[in-house]
Amino acid sequence: MTSHTPVGRQLRPQGKLLQEDARRHHRSLLLQQLFREGPASRADLARASGLTRVTVSDLVGEMLADGFVTELGAPAGSRVGKPPTLVGLAADSHHIIGLDLSETDRMSGAVVNLAGTVLARHEVHVDGAEGEQAVELVQRLTSELVAMTERPVLGIGVGSPGIVDTAGTVIDAPNLAWQDTPLSARLAEAFDVPVYVANDANTAVLGEHTFGESGDGGLMVLRVGTGVGAGFVLGGSLLHGHLGAAGEIGHVVVDVAGELCACGRTGCLETLLSAPRLRRRVGEPGVDAPAVLSDVGTRLGEVLAPIVAALNLHEIVLSGPAELLDGPLLDAADRAIRERTMPISSTGLAVRTSKLGEDVVVVGAAVLVLSAELGVS
Amino acid sequence: MTSHTPVGRQLRPQGKLLQEDARRHHRSLLLQQLFREGPASRADLARASGLTRVTVSDLVGEMLADGFVTELGAPAGSRVGKPPTLVGLAADSHHIIGLDLSETDRMSGAVVNLAGTVLARHEVHVDGAEGEQAVELVQRLTSELVAMTERPVLGIGVGSPGIVDTAGTVIDAPNLAWQDTPLSARLAEAFDVPVYVANDANTAVLGEHTFGESGDGGLMVLRVGTGVGAGFVLGGSLLHGHLGAAGEIGHVVVDVAGELCACGRTGCLETLLSAPRLRRRVGEPGVDAPAVLSDVGTRLGEVLAPIVAALNLHEIVLSGPAELLDGPLLDAADRAIRERTMPISSTGLAVRTSKLGEDVVVVGAAVLVLSAELGVS
Repeated sequence: MTSHTPVGRQLRPQGKLLQEDARRHHRSLLLQQLFREGPASRADLARASGLTRVTVSDLVGEMLADGFVTELGAPAGSRVGKPPTLVGLAADSHHIIGLDLSETDRMSGAVVNLAGTVLARHEVHVDGAEGEQAVELVQRLTSELVAMTERPVLGIGVGSPGIVDTAGTVIDAPNLAWQDTPLSARLAEAFDVPVYVANDANTAVLGEHTFGESGDGGLMVLRVGTGVGAGFVLGGSLLHGHLGAAGEIGHVVVDVAGELCACGRTGCLETLLSAPRLRRRVGEPGVDAPAVLSDVGTRLGEVLAPIVAALNLHEIVLSGPAELLDGPLLDAADRAIRERTMPISSTGLAVRTSKLGEDVVVVGAAVLVLSAELGVS
Repeated sequence: MTSHTPVGRQLRPQGKLLQEDARRHHRSLLLQQLFREGPASRADLARASGLTRVTVSDLVGEMLADGFVTELGAPAGSRVGKPPTLVGLAADSHHIIGLDLSETDRMSGAVVNLAGTVLARHEVHVDGAEGEQAVELVQRLTSELVAMTERPVLGIGVGSPGIVDTAGTVIDAPNLAWQDTPLSARLAEAFDVPVYVANDANTAVLGEHTFGESGDGGLMVLRVGTGVGAGFVLGGSLLHGHLGAAGEIGHVVVDVAGELCACGRTGCLETLLSAPRLRRRVGEPGVDAPAVLSDVGTRLGEVLAPIVAALNLHEIVLSGPAELLDGPLLDAADRAIRERTMPISSTGLAVRTSKLGEDVVVVGAAVLVLSAELGVS
């Protein structure tokens, strides 16, 4: 008798399960296999998923009709008997529009295919647009991106600054003067496709989770830009937080005698780590830049140590300007975390920068759609 | 078109869903309703669950046969037409054995019914038992508890010190000299019922989640005893961590110039906060006990602030000696957290002590069984 502790699954059951839910789940199992492992025969898919050959054939037939998969012929080198037909994800059967609204001066977006490849990019300048004007700017950017693809659009994903609820309403984003702005509903109305909006750091962690070669353990992505924020995938799920504010660590006070912060208090992590402030400090004449970066890294490590110990994270990924983050800052943060936590907490931990660069939010926005619509990530 | 961000659910699909899984899920929906809201008619259950009357009647019939629910007759005051029959959880149809191995001098346990009521208690002295001897002691305690109930035993739940994997093997528990000790398998073999073993802080957070009147947001239970550890329920799931070490915050360094810790380093949170050390400090002649407790609370708040900001927790519950925790220490921790995080992080946060007292681990051990076997918590 093997009994497993109930971890990583909902403790309290929610909602009835329909026949349709099981079908969608099984379809996702097959798509996930093709998405991560590449083309496979129906027999391979049955083995990998544990589903019967009949169920697999049935679901593959449905997905062929919908266009999400395609038949690729026999694998090279099959010789004996009737060769199996490989099935693969039809990466360009549908496209996704991914938006990144986290920059202060511009809104950027991309047309992304089902394999996460960025096919086209486009951006618009913000030029001080706020409130309703900023919503209209997002609509214009989206519509210009939609015009850049001839494929059906599977959905629109948006990484927005600020606090965003699960229905895609931006509760508060000071830079864009958005308060309770129903961004998802507005875009869904305008474009008549599924729309998913999340905080930009939450979007980034999905991008890293899916396309950043991360493992399956706890992942934190720390975004360093004008602001500082984080996103978490824990136990295989995106963390939202009680009021949707998970990851808002930029305003944790690290030095009560520190610099004045935009939030009105002193010594927030952001006063040390935001890209503009850090760039200014290391650029001052006569400054020992590596020493400054190392010092900031140590302070960052001190903030991260309790988080690492609490969550037993597998990976911490820094995302932002490589010339600031990758080097003395990263090394010092890594060292401080290990000095301040038990070996069991830090042994399995990797601290690194993201290889996705600035694309992390747009591809993460695509993952919002991939995950919700196809169940793959 | 309403599209919800995929939070709080597995991003990557896992395992096929059987007809049997849907049936178990629906049964759990009904049991959860009876467990949390009390007796209800079949019509009430259909309304609350969204299941059809036919499905509900069928599942209730099955649960009546299994003994988990019972018919209670008509509610008082029904007058018109055929009165509905209420169905209720048969709390004493089965009993659960809950064990708490977290104390250094004794192992304690209880017979708990399906409603979480402790019906009988029993304990054994550890007397320096280690390794295999300690396993045998757990078996003796369990067998004496099993003898204290005449009901079928639904399962055995154990809150153990140390790092425990999801299969219930204790990877490392220095106090009991357990290393890779398959505690769950050993008990399952001896008693032939389902056995669930988790770290004692993880067990405690389940106890608080289910019986501690906590809400549905992120919950952290901080256990203060000989050691200091925490457990988390986030997004409705128990957090395990990459190597099963989630919540091990006792050895986060808070003061590099602090006291020597049992782990060989200096200034770990445990050197300030463990019950024996704290009791000794406030008991010293001439010491201003409230000032000491307040100072420790502030340091604790500084460690918790990054965790609160990262997770956007709803509740932090301190569990341990009330005379130490409830008062200046709690107040100072609460204040330090709020001073060091943004309002969005701390506004929805409650910091309090547990009303479950020392029972939190044994009832949490019962929740391990309730959750895994019946899907209720």
